[in-house]
Amino acid sequence: MKNKKNIEFDKLLSRKAPAFRARAELPRAKYDFAIAYPDPQSLPLNDLLDSLSQGLLEEGADLAWYPDVQGYQPLREYVANKLRTERRMQVTAEQVVLGDGSSQHISMIIDMFIDPGDIAITEDFFYSGTLTTLKTAGADIRGVKCDNSGMLPDVLERTIADLVAQKKRPKLIYTIPTFQNPQGWTMSLERRKALVDIASFYEIPIFEDDCYVDLRYEGENVPAIHSLDPTGQVMYVASFSKIIAPGLRMGYFVGPEEIIGRLRMLRKTGGSGVNQFTALAVHRYAISGLDCHVNTINKIQRTRRDAMLAALGETFDPSASWSTPEGGLYLWLKMPKSVDLSSISQEVLSAGVGYQPGTMFSPDGTTGKNYARLCFGYNPADEIGEGIEILANLFTKAGLF
Amino acid sequence: MKNKKNIEFDKLLSRKAPAFRARAELPRAKYDFAIAYPDPQSLPLNDLLDSLSQGLLEEGADLAWYPDVQGYQPLREYVANKLRTERRMQVTAEQVVLGDGSSQHISMIIDMFIDPGDIAITEDFFYSGTLTTLKTAGADIRGVKCDNSGMLPDVLERTIADLVAQKKRPKLIYTIPTFQNPQGWTMSLERRKALVDIASFYEIPIFEDDCYVDLRYEGENVPAIHSLDPTGQVMYVASFSKIIAPGLRMGYFVGPEEIIGRLRMLRKTGGSGVNQFTALAVHRYAISGLDCHVNTINKIQRTRRDAMLAALGETFDPSASWSTPEGGLYLWLKMPKSVDLSSISQEVLSAGVGYQPGTMFSPDGTTGKNYARLCFGYNPADEIGEGIEILANLFTKAGLF
Repeated sequence: MKNKKNIEFDKLLSRKAPAFRARAELPRAKYDFAIAYPDPQSLPLNDLLDSLSQGLLEEGADLAWYPDVQGYQPLREYVANKLRTERRMQVTAEQVVLGDGSSQHISMIIDMFIDPGDIAITEDFFYSGTLTTLKTAGADIRGVKCDNSGMLPDVLERTIADLVAQKKRPKLIYTIPTFQNPQGWTMSLERRKALVDIASFYEIPIFEDDCYVDLRYEGENVPAIHSLDPTGQVMYVASFSKIIAPGLRMGYFVGPEEIIGRLRMLRKTGGSGVNQFTALAVHRYAISGLDCHVNTINKIQRTRRDAMLAALGETFDPSASWSTPEGGLYLWLKMPKSVDLSSISQEVLSAGVGYQPGTMFSPDGTTGKNYARLCFGYNPADEIGEGIEILANLFTKAGLF
Repeated sequence: MKNKKNIEFDKLLSRKAPAFRARAELPRAKYDFAIAYPDPQSLPLNDLLDSLSQGLLEEGADLAWYPDVQGYQPLREYVANKLRTERRMQVTAEQVVLGDGSSQHISMIIDMFIDPGDIAITEDFFYSGTLTTLKTAGADIRGVKCDNSGMLPDVLERTIADLVAQKKRPKLIYTIPTFQNPQGWTMSLERRKALVDIASFYEIPIFEDDCYVDLRYEGENVPAIHSLDPTGQVMYVASFSKIIAPGLRMGYFVGPEEIIGRLRMLRKTGGSGVNQFTALAVHRYAISGLDCHVNTINKIQRTRRDAMLAALGETFDPSASWSTPEGGLYLWLKMPKSVDLSSISQEVLSAGVGYQPGTMFSPDGTTGKNYARLCFGYNPADEIGEGIEILANLFTKAGLF
């Protein structure tokens, strides 16, 4: 009965099995403008430890239980209160689901709506994580042209009307309305209202990704799209990754009960609740030191944004332009049309400077060659100056200006 | 353009959207023999806090990065070394993927292999979490009869041969070989070898769930099925939930690169790596105090097992019988054939005693009415005695003996 040949797993996999992904070490540049990190030196490690200590003292024995499928109830209360106060959203803790950062919820929601060939409406350039997840799900992604206030409503409406006329109703509209990733703009209140009206008319759910909203350095807070929606068709996701640390993997989702109930099923079968150890630390920290910490890091990050803007102004040719975001961790660089920033990015990386070319954020993966996202959260201001100068010199040498 | 009627989400969902799950509070009995918890009073909270403190001091700034998609490398090294030493498995850290307990991996692997109607071979009664996940994936579950050494090899072989003759090759064989949940037996070495031979001959992957292996109170350690397999067709999952705490959600998977690569894709799109905050604590604790802690809790849990066995012997009618597990957190109660422990479980719960009836562990959900799983990890020994006595009195009053 022996038959020691290796099994062919490929033939046994389900139709929904994910593709193979090779192991890849992400290269870390000295001047890392590639990834939207918070400042490693500002992480509130001691406060987190104290918060966890307090949480464990008070409720540590509960770690012997399997956690709530929607996540630690007091942290959900905190989130609901924060969203009511800061985002004007009508939310209770029952409508909140905690998860691994925001990306777990983004993945769950996309899988819940998108079958291969289904249409998702997005901004013309948007967060590469969501882009990859949409592509993996087989979505037909339609990016809508944006200006500095968000998606152009007439283009959005025409896009949807054309699709509906072809009996291809989009499954959802995904948007990052605040400090849009990578473009940096914030959607105006008028645009938000127009978006809700269009989505409501065509009965298309909106998926609002508000991951950077707490990192505002100037300008007026704009209410969440969720708060403007009378029909319960907006799903909302945000995270503690950018205001505490990505390594804690703690995000939150808000949505209608019809969707929450399905997330409960996914959490029940796919993880038995949300990390309670981390939730205890995040909760105790959130109710004590978090607001103060956000003020502190926003001051630091504003300085870094200003340093990057100043360095670009001093060293870059006037043929280049860039966004001036009121918050967030990146700006959007635009070079002359003929420039290809994707093909030169490896060479630039060898010189110690990392960035993500615009093609990483476009649905077709080829549009946006002359754009790049430059993040300013990681390096101190003086290093940002150095890195931008290196970039300017390399671009000049390569004849890109 | 206003149209404020509520959206019908149901019509927009994908084919793979999960079912709705109502919010349910799990009733907690005073005598909680229902859930396989570790002892809440023995959780190593202070040591975990110290371990985290050390980890944050040494590597806390790295929390600003997105964690490794397979999880914190030093913890994967620890796991690989543990499995080489204790389970005789040939494993490197590259073959290990960390995750939210074991259930996340169980869910990912089942989704990776099972399309609706696909066949999964299991034990006749097995862990209700995996059972739910298999049912949710639409698996055709074939439970193989077991005795006190595991699945009966001739029944297993006949089951598979019949299916293969009908051109229905099973997609995987799921087994809990050590302190089987809920039956309590440990699969003998001979049975493990026979299982590997059969699986190898028919080229069916084995999915070995070894979640309780560290909780051995007596008897000889039996090598992992993974260690007996020369063809790389065994996938292995285990967890820190039972030896540290479920609330930390930290488990690990070992498998061939073909499968690991697909898990990398899932982790990349569905969570951006594994909770590094928790992994730092678990790692520093694992390399310092964990072995000692396991010795301590095993002594406590052995006492509780013995208390339950003694109480059953003293108070239960001889028409009932039960397993005497060498480890784990539960035993398997068998009542006379005509008894229905599922219909009486709510009444018993009202009297303060929780258990899970056998029907919760059987593929058809109706077989096993006269069985129940009784967990002994949660209550101290004296409370276990009280709870079993209450149970015996209720069963007597209900005429079940």
